[in-house]
Amino acid sequence: MLDKVPIVRIYKDGRGTPKRMEDTVVAEYALTIRLDDKDLVTLLCSPEKLEYLAVGFLFSEGIIKGKEDIKEIVLDENKGAIGIATAEPGKTAKDTASQRLIGSSGGRGISSFDLDHNIVESQRTITPAEIFDLIEELVHRSEVFEATGGVHSAALCDTRRILVFSEDIGRHNAIDKVFGECVLTGISTDEHIVVTSGRVSSEIVHKAVKSNIPILISKSAPTNRGVELAADLGITLVGFVREGRMNLYTHTGRIVTDGS
Amino acid sequence: MLDKVPIVRIYKDGRGTPKRMEDTVVAEYALTIRLDDKDLVTLLCSPEKLEYLAVGFLFSEGIIKGKEDIKEIVLDENKGAIGIATAEPGKTAKDTASQRLIGSSGGRGISSFDLDHNIVESQRTITPAEIFDLIEELVHRSEVFEATGGVHSAALCDTRRILVFSEDIGRHNAIDKVFGECVLTGISTDEHIVVTSGRVSSEIVHKAVKSNIPILISKSAPTNRGVELAADLGITLVGFVREGRMNLYTHTGRIVTDGS
Repeated sequence: MLDKVPIVRIYKDGRGTPKRMEDTVVAEYALTIRLDDKDLVTLLCSPEKLEYLAVGFLFSEGIIKGKEDIKEIVLDENKGAIGIATAEPGKTAKDTASQRLIGSSGGRGISSFDLDHNIVESQRTITPAEIFDLIEELVHRSEVFEATGGVHSAALCDTRRILVFSEDIGRHNAIDKVFGECVLTGISTDEHIVVTSGRVSSEIVHKAVKSNIPILISKSAPTNRGVELAADLGITLVGFVREGRMNLYTHTGRIVTDGS
Repeated sequence: MLDKVPIVRIYKDGRGTPKRMEDTVVAEYALTIRLDDKDLVTLLCSPEKLEYLAVGFLFSEGIIKGKEDIKEIVLDENKGAIGIATAEPGKTAKDTASQRLIGSSGGRGISSFDLDHNIVESQRTITPAEIFDLIEELVHRSEVFEATGGVHSAALCDTRRILVFSEDIGRHNAIDKVFGECVLTGISTDEHIVVTSGRVSSEIVHKAVKSNIPILISKSAPTNRGVELAADLGITLVGFVREGRMNLYTHTGRIVTDGS
C-alpha cells in the first residue's frame, strides 16, 4: 500500500540548499469489477484486500445479499480486474450501471483515464515564499472549513494572489467549480497555478492538465499515481505544504529560489 | 453551505452531565446533471456555485471544450437538477454514461439512494470511555496513515475491541472492505459497531444500515444529510471523537454513562 518517490524538501526557515530525499507516498490502484462477465465499475483504491473490497461494494450496493449469491471470484492483480460470477446472473440488478451517483468526496472521471493529453509546457516559475503565502491565503479564505472541518478548498492563482476560489465537501468538486468559473467567465487558466487543500490523486492531475496548469500545489499528500502522472504530463507537483515545509515531487525547475 | 443540528457533547474528563448544544455541520446536496435532456450523473456536493460545478465537471471530463459548446444552462435548485444543452448535441461523447470510474476518496452508490431500508433496531449500548478506546485503537492500527497521512481506516468492533480492520485511500472503500470481509468469512455485523476515520456523509450511513449497524462512530464530522439519515434509519451517530471530546448526533439513548 506504500511506495517511495524521490523528492526535494524545502524548509521555510531553512537557509541551506533544498534537500534531496526519499518520501513515502500511498499507492493508488485501479480495480475494475466485472460482474457476470460485464464491466460494472472501476474503483480507485489501495491495493490490498481486493476481494473484500469487490464483495463489500456489491453488498453495499444491494447487488448481492450475501455469500450465497457468489459463485466464483477471480482476481487478476496484474490486470487490475476482479471477476465475480453470481449464482443467478439474471437476478442481479441489471440497471445498476446505467445510473451514476458520484459521492461527496469523490472521484469521478467518466473519461478521466483517456490518455489524450497534451504535455504542459510553460516557463512559469514560483518561489517557495510565494507558495507558502498562497497556501496561507487559501486557508484564510476557507470559512466553511473553519466552521466545520468538513470541506475542501481549491483556487486558481497567479504567483501573488488567488483569482478564483471555491469550497466543496468534495475535493474534485472544489476544483471543478474553479475551472467551471474560468470557462463561464472567460478567465484563462494558462500559465496559472492551482492550490488545493486535498490529496492529489491521478484524477486531480488529469483535471489540471485539461486546463493546462503548469504548477499544482497541495496542502496534502499526493498518491504514487498522482506523482507519476504529474511527471509524465509536465506538471510541477508540490505537496504537504504545512508546518513550514514543502515537498517538490516533479518538474522542480519551476520552483526558483527566493531572491533569484 | 452550513446547517445547524442539535447535539449532545461529552468531554472525556468532564464530570458533569452531558451538555446539550447546537453544532454546525456542512450541508450535503445532490445535483443531477442532465446533458441534452439525458441524465448524465448525480454529484454529491456543497450547494453553492452549482453552474460552475456542472460546467467544470463537463469540461474536466472532456465533454465540452469551452463556453462555445454550451447553448443553455437551466438550474432548478429545488429539484436538485441542472440541465445543460450543448450547441451540437450529437458531438458530445455518447458513451460517457456507460463507463463508470469511481475515485479514490469517493462516493459511489449506484443504487445507494433507494430508500428500501429497514430501520436498525438494537439494544446495543456503549459508554463514552469505550468509544474513546475504540477510536484510539483505530488510530493505533492505522500504520499506512501513520506513514503517509493519506488513507482512511474503518473497523467493525464490539464494545471492547476491533474485530475487522481495513485501510484504503478511499473512505468508502475502507468500509466496503470491512463489510466484504464479514460477508466472505461469515462474521455477523448485527449488534456490532463501526468506527471510521472519515467524514460521515449520507452514503456512509446507507452502507451502515445495509449491514444493520446500530452505532456508527467517526473521528471526523458528519454532513447534515448524514445526520438526517442516521436519525431516520435508527442509527446512533457519534462524530468528532478527538481531543478528549465527542458529539452525539442521533439516537443518543445507546450511549450510556460510564459506570451505569
